[in-house]
Amino acid sequence: MIKYIVGIDIGGSKINAVLFKNGKIFKSAKILTSKNLKELLEKLEALVRKLISGLGSKKISGIGCGVAGVLDLQKGVILNAPNLKFLNNLNIKKWLQEQFRREVKIDNDARSFLRAEYMFGAGRGYKNLIGITFGTGIGGGMFINDKIIYGANDSAGELGHMIISKRKDLELLIVKQARKLRFSKMATKKFGQNLGIGFANVINILDPEVIIIGGGAAKTVKKFLPEIKIEAAKFIISPKSRKNVKILVGKLGEDAGAIGAAALFLE
Amino acid sequence: MIKYIVGIDIGGSKINAVLFKNGKIFKSAKILTSKNLKELLEKLEALVRKLISGLGSKKISGIGCGVAGVLDLQKGVILNAPNLKFLNNLNIKKWLQEQFRREVKIDNDARSFLRAEYMFGAGRGYKNLIGITFGTGIGGGMFINDKIIYGANDSAGELGHMIISKRKDLELLIVKQARKLRFSKMATKKFGQNLGIGFANVINILDPEVIIIGGGAAKTVKKFLPEIKIEAAKFIISPKSRKNVKILVGKLGEDAGAIGAAALFLE
Repeated sequence: MIKYIVGIDIGGSKINAVLFKNGKIFKSAKILTSKNLKELLEKLEALVRKLISGLGSKKISGIGCGVAGVLDLQKGVILNAPNLKFLNNLNIKKWLQEQFRREVKIDNDARSFLRAEYMFGAGRGYKNLIGITFGTGIGGGMFINDKIIYGANDSAGELGHMIISKRKDLELLIVKQARKLRFSKMATKKFGQNLGIGFANVINILDPEVIIIGGGAAKTVKKFLPEIKIEAAKFIISPKSRKNVKILVGKLGEDAGAIGAAALFLE
Repeated sequence: MIKYIVGIDIGGSKINAVLFKNGKIFKSAKILTSKNLKELLEKLEALVRKLISGLGSKKISGIGCGVAGVLDLQKGVILNAPNLKFLNNLNIKKWLQEQFRREVKIDNDARSFLRAEYMFGAGRGYKNLIGITFGTGIGGGMFINDKIIYGANDSAGELGHMIISKRKDLELLIVKQARKLRFSKMATKKFGQNLGIGFANVINILDPEVIIIGGGAAKTVKKFLPEIKIEAAKFIISPKSRKNVKILVGKLGEDAGAIGAAALFLE
């Protein structure tokens, strides 16, 4: 009997959850992220209870949870969630285990997004992939030779925290400029330029086959793809990479992160 | 009978070559890089002939060659050598095969440096390593989970071409500032700051255990290590990475690149 897996994606502004079975979403639900820890945990518990209601707990093989931040994957602790600071130092793994008495696996949210797209979405068939998510913050994940990369301290892939100009990181510059897109031509131009630089940097460093864009603001970024590609090409040093690298938008939509968290049980 | 391997390292200003056997250098030689293709190839041929003189060609199992640039490793072609532009489009693999009638393997010079340090030097015992070389240009290499990373188009690791401020890359900023180090306090300050940003970026993206510094200017960079570490710490997002990551200087000196090129036959 194939059991259900619960997948949760805790992002800067939304929490998505899915009930996943046999490579498909059986049920999904979402809520807005709360502003404090107590309220967030109460709402998260209710969300998961609603999702699994009617199922005996023996039918749930595990809970996978992605979080927008730097995590200690073994201990289960959220070390640094820049856009959800009240989560810092929470042992989310232990908390979920205690609430639901099932095996829990956790991961970074952007890595979860990329795992989902690699297994079920726009990344199928590729071996070397970068995922970059645009939402409240900017996150990243990487597959190299068909393996997801965690790094020595579980924190590889923090693409949003790459400094690209005047001691400011990509996340700060892009999120700031995104707010001004409708009002300022200069912001529009700089938005495309900075994204192009960010993409060129990861291409020069990692030389992927494909970069997959995700997150709540993926559609906004998609509109700038022609500009991003022109800008990135100016800075990509390898003629072959410049020609071959693909930039795609994820196919799984807003549930990708939760699917990828559930897929921690399928690796 | 263990045979000799020839290792060559073609850098922006020097060519180093070693005769390598049993994990040790048996003989080494170096010349300055020429300013045009014809002269460089003549001098390179003479350098290798001198190195192998007295040895029957049957005693040479192969020639490994590292080049400071983006390469097509299968075809053997130098695609983009920013600091040795006259080498662009040369099939260095074919040329070496024709001159010396032995098997030839080629690789990027910074990746060769890191392979040498990983196998025989400061990188022994680590699984996740970044190498960064400072010379005429800035190069890079990466090991992830004990495997060297080539990327989808053989060009992963171009750390010097990471844009870090005002559309300028690390190589341009650092090489420019390095020239002014003795004369300008501002250049000294910016040199440390920009290196700190470069290191923080690769740590945020790749989360290595160790970064190993090499190249002809490694000693200059070493003097700035305290400043680099303070600056990098400001931008590293993971508290664990910030605490754990080591920054070391390579142990193999100026022959590292040539040793790592020879070591292409030991993988």
